[in-house]
Amino acid sequence: MQTFSWSIRVYYEDTDAGGVVYHSKYMNFFERARTEWLRSRGFDQSALVEAYSVVFAVRRMTIEFIKPARLDDQLTVTVEPGRIGGARLQLRQTLERNSNAPQRQQLAAADVEVACLDARQFAPVRIPAAIKEKL
Amino acid sequence: MQTFSWSIRVYYEDTDAGGVVYHSKYMNFFERARTEWLRSRGFDQSALVEAYSVVFAVRRMTIEFIKPARLDDQLTVTVEPGRIGGARLQLRQTLERNSNAPQRQQLAAADVEVACLDARQFAPVRIPAAIKEKL
Amino acid sequence: MQTFSWSIRVYYEDTDAGGVVYHSKYMNFFERARTEWLRSRGFDQSALVEAYSVVFAVRRMTIEFIKPARLDDQLTVTVEPGRIGGARLQLRQTLERNSNAPQRQQLAAADVEVACLDARQFAPVRIPAAIKEKL
Amino acid sequence: MQTFSWSIRVYYEDTDAGGVVYHSKYMNFFERARTEWLRSRGFDQSALVEAYSVVFAVRRMTIEFIKPARLDDQLTVTVEPGRIGGARLQLRQTLERNSNAPQRQQLAAADVEVACLDARQFAPVRIPAAIKEKL
Repeated sequence: MQTFSWSIRVYYEDTDAGGVVYHSKYMNFFERARTEWLRSRGFDQSALVEAYSVVFAVRRMTIEFIKPARLDDQLTVTVEPGRIGGARLQLRQTLERNSNAPQRQQLAAADVEVACLDARQFAPVRIPAAIKEKL
Repeated sequence: MQTFSWSIRVYYEDTDAGGVVYHSKYMNFFERARTEWLRSRGFDQSALVEAYSVVFAVRRMTIEFIKPARLDDQLTVTVEPGRIGGARLQLRQTLERNSNAPQRQQLAAADVEVACLDARQFAPVRIPAAIKEKL
Repeated sequence: MQTFSWSIRVYYEDTDAGGVVYHSKYMNFFERARTEWLRSRGFDQSALVEAYSVVFAVRRMTIEFIKPARLDDQLTVTVEPGRIGGARLQLRQTLERNSNAPQRQQLAAADVEVACLDARQFAPVRIPAAIKEKL
Repeated sequence: MQTFSWSIRVYYEDTDAGGVVYHSKYMNFFERARTEWLRSRGFDQSALVEAYSVVFAVRRMTIEFIKPARLDDQLTVTVEPGRIGGARLQLRQTLERNSNAPQRQQLAAADVEVACLDARQFAPVRIPAAIKEKL
């Protein structure tokens, strides 16, 4: 499977008084990239709720913070799909700073386990076949 | 009508790379105080949705930013109810830094117009009588 | 002076349990558009701090919330510069939902007064001439 | 070492359009509890920067999301310090919903590795002895 990439700019709202991006914002950036990856496969999340009554929710996440991102940085966030089970999905994600240097600098990396949940009860349900085959 | 007060601590998540509280966070702080003011009158917002199918939403807000709040500051946010109409509510709010000085320092002030909306359609509806009489 | 436009996508992080965009997030969206407007004039905010030791901070803001934005909406935020004084800047901003309809739907509008401040003391200072002439 | 507890209320700002607390907000809640744990040991984070020129930053974090928290929930977040190394600190944290039931409901848990960093360069430095002995 291919790696999906999404570009994100850092604004004041993302930073903290330490002068760097506040650590939980990386989770938001990772989620924006997963949302755009789903959209690139044909699925808006709002449409998933309406059409299938499911939401994809993070069940477990390990984040490694390597170097801080800063105000005005242009970042690239990746999504690399791993194992897709009946009701779960494993993803590997990275966050890099764009630069003129030959190699992009990796700032963070995450292993993410996403569960398919009923949109009302938040109980685990099988990933609808129509979605699974496109992922 | 009495002025209601609520205490708020500033955390890293509230600050930005300028070293001060990010400006939109004042709106969150003002909203926490309004929520606690409603709770002090007997109304949890989640219960308002279930019992009356209404939400209170900001329709118009003017905020004046006087001095910056900073990390670890202990703030006091006030709510002073003004005119209550059929479907709207006027409030005056202030945000002050607690200090050992004889007077608290005012950091921000807001005039807020809140509308009572149907929780599904977001169309204006009359404030339920049971709520209105307690406000 | 010309009106500047910036496109913003709504993610889960921007919404609240009412099913719509949380009201203070409009302030973030307005700020992203001002930041990109400054960048389009040649000024990154992080460079402003380093080169001129100034920050632009909101001094006063009136926001009108007209209709709610929702998950997955594609929004257009505008910046229309008004009067530029010695140390202050007036701006008019709007937030619209993109749609296939002939007219875009206006969801919010704001009048913003921005002050030029010393980056350390947060005291008002004159807008540096090199910046002023490009705005 | 003892477990430290901190109480947190869920507001609209913490929730998303799925009707539950947005997942990255748990990281904010965990950080508030760590901040208050440090404060209970005598250390404000703003004072740490001024007095010792150090910041504590999350280096690695694993979060398990067990059940969703919701609007108006009253939560208890715990901090249980683990191994303290020369420049790193291991912590175990949990997040529970308060209820009238005999047992509190665990909603999330995290293993956190915090690094002591120079406040300017964000390079690892030894935890100052005066801090280490109080933790």
